[in-house]
Amino acid sequence: MKLTAALGPASYDVIIKPGTLARVHRLANLRRRVMVVSDDGVPAKYVKALLQQCDEGHSCILPQGEGGKSIESWQAILARMLDAGFDRHDLVVAVGGGVPGDVAGFAAASYMRGIDWLQVPTTTMAQIDASVGGKTAVNLGGTKNVAGAFHQPRLVVADSNTLKTLPPRHMANGLAEALKTALIGDADLFELMEQKDIAQNLERILYLALRYKIGVVERDATEQGERRLLNFGHTIGHGIEAAGGPQGLLHGECVALGMLPMIESKTLLRRTRAVMRKLGLPLKYTADPDTVLHYMQRDKKREGDRYTIVRVKTLGEGALETVTFDELRLLVKGNGG
Amino acid sequence: MKLTAALGPASYDVIIKPGTLARVHRLANLRRRVMVVSDDGVPAKYVKALLQQCDEGHSCILPQGEGGKSIESWQAILARMLDAGFDRHDLVVAVGGGVPGDVAGFAAASYMRGIDWLQVPTTTMAQIDASVGGKTAVNLGGTKNVAGAFHQPRLVVADSNTLKTLPPRHMANGLAEALKTALIGDADLFELMEQKDIAQNLERILYLALRYKIGVVERDATEQGERRLLNFGHTIGHGIEAAGGPQGLLHGECVALGMLPMIESKTLLRRTRAVMRKLGLPLKYTADPDTVLHYMQRDKKREGDRYTIVRVKTLGEGALETVTFDELRLLVKGNGG
Repeated sequence: MKLTAALGPASYDVIIKPGTLARVHRLANLRRRVMVVSDDGVPAKYVKALLQQCDEGHSCILPQGEGGKSIESWQAILARMLDAGFDRHDLVVAVGGGVPGDVAGFAAASYMRGIDWLQVPTTTMAQIDASVGGKTAVNLGGTKNVAGAFHQPRLVVADSNTLKTLPPRHMANGLAEALKTALIGDADLFELMEQKDIAQNLERILYLALRYKIGVVERDATEQGERRLLNFGHTIGHGIEAAGGPQGLLHGECVALGMLPMIESKTLLRRTRAVMRKLGLPLKYTADPDTVLHYMQRDKKREGDRYTIVRVKTLGEGALETVTFDELRLLVKGNGG
Repeated sequence: MKLTAALGPASYDVIIKPGTLARVHRLANLRRRVMVVSDDGVPAKYVKALLQQCDEGHSCILPQGEGGKSIESWQAILARMLDAGFDRHDLVVAVGGGVPGDVAGFAAASYMRGIDWLQVPTTTMAQIDASVGGKTAVNLGGTKNVAGAFHQPRLVVADSNTLKTLPPRHMANGLAEALKTALIGDADLFELMEQKDIAQNLERILYLALRYKIGVVERDATEQGERRLLNFGHTIGHGIEAAGGPQGLLHGECVALGMLPMIESKTLLRRTRAVMRKLGLPLKYTADPDTVLHYMQRDKKREGDRYTIVRVKTLGEGALETVTFDELRLLVKGNGG
């Protein structure tokens, strides 16, 4: 299956196809210096398969997890490219989950003020969400995505074979973003996830989630308006994630937990919990709500004392709403923990 | 005098007016969090004058010189903004020469994936060249501008009163960029600099140099084509600058020296040297040509083994040319030192 993100001169294709990781050279120009960026949790054979397709391939392997999403990682990639003589016409390829994608993408966005990059997501999280949209960033201290850029990749290659070896918890982690998409924009996707076997319908779920996200990104690439809907679950979710620290819950798990207080219909809340249970996502978190609230104050969606949040009244219809911190506190305290 | 850089949604005005530093709040929205970034070589009264115009002003003072143009400086600005609770709607103001402009601009480009910034250049170098065009960057190791972004400011305020206290060497340093502009694109500006009193015609020189640069940036904001003409003198100049280290020549001095081997007419070369002498610019450098060549190999304008350089045959007409490293070596060895 192929989707296209139509973004003018920054347009690109998203290829969803089993086995396509071995065929990236047929889809993109790898006959230049290529820096393959991954992390040490990604099977080494994926990096190797990509390097074999390059004339001059280099690699940079980051530590797995949010800790790898640092300014130090970004700087290490830049230094490696500089040492290897990379110029403005060379290429970065991100292989793995959201973390290598975010860091490698920001390295590509900033190296010599911007060079090409490709995304080869190998987790459900990255295939469903992180690989499309051009958001790149690194963390600073405990705060997520402080430094970054909007920098669209030239191509996204989602090889669903890579998902077969994914631990169940990481599989569910990415599906949380599909569930988010379903709740804010695609009732059919919700019902598919609610009623059908997930494993058997994985490519369809991937396709529908990406199709929705690409549409939103096409209409609002730099998150001035509609794209903010994609932050559904993220305001509280980022707080839960930061409060948990590196040993805490995964990003998608936190997003799912962050969605629950934002669902205004009791029936839909019940149905959403049931899907979360089916996927193997947690239904509560142990972090202290006040700590969660502390980290939420560093949210990028904040404007002065006002927070733009996303709420869902009706299945498939997310809506932006501006609330004060006190109102946000009630939402967190009412449903958290 | 006012010029406008017409860049669609990223358009902005360039105000050239004595005394205007005290009136920035009339020209831009300072009623938000403002991070004023400067360096310790810039008179503190300029930073103070800006902070007085802000409702919530913060400042970050970098060490003067290229050493301040580091990833550490950039990270320090981001951390200060994060601690002060800056959100996406807040503002960065760069005050001083090219270094605070480049670092603060990259901080604005990357903080939460991009926020507004203003340029308040207080040196001839920054007023004539660095403040317009949206190029931002920091150095990595000994290599200039490795990490950066194209991020246009919302406004440029050039208060020519600030040039009155500038040491003569720094005055000449910026005028080197005006001379560069004259050679590649404006014969009238060259003759003005050749024949008239510089101090008495400073605003006119500033205006003509900026007018030319803005035109080029409007036609090619991200340096795909014509904008590369502005790199005249920079290929060899960056090599001289890097070879000299922190105690070496200033950027403009190096650019002027880097232009000389690229001028193909003996008469024009003689006239250019005369203007350089009049401005107080050096006519030779002491760095070892092989060291200069070593650093030139890290040039961003390199594509594999080919270098795009700018040459001038006729006054006011720069032309791009692609040469090999061996050809570049001959140019450096023939004229260097």
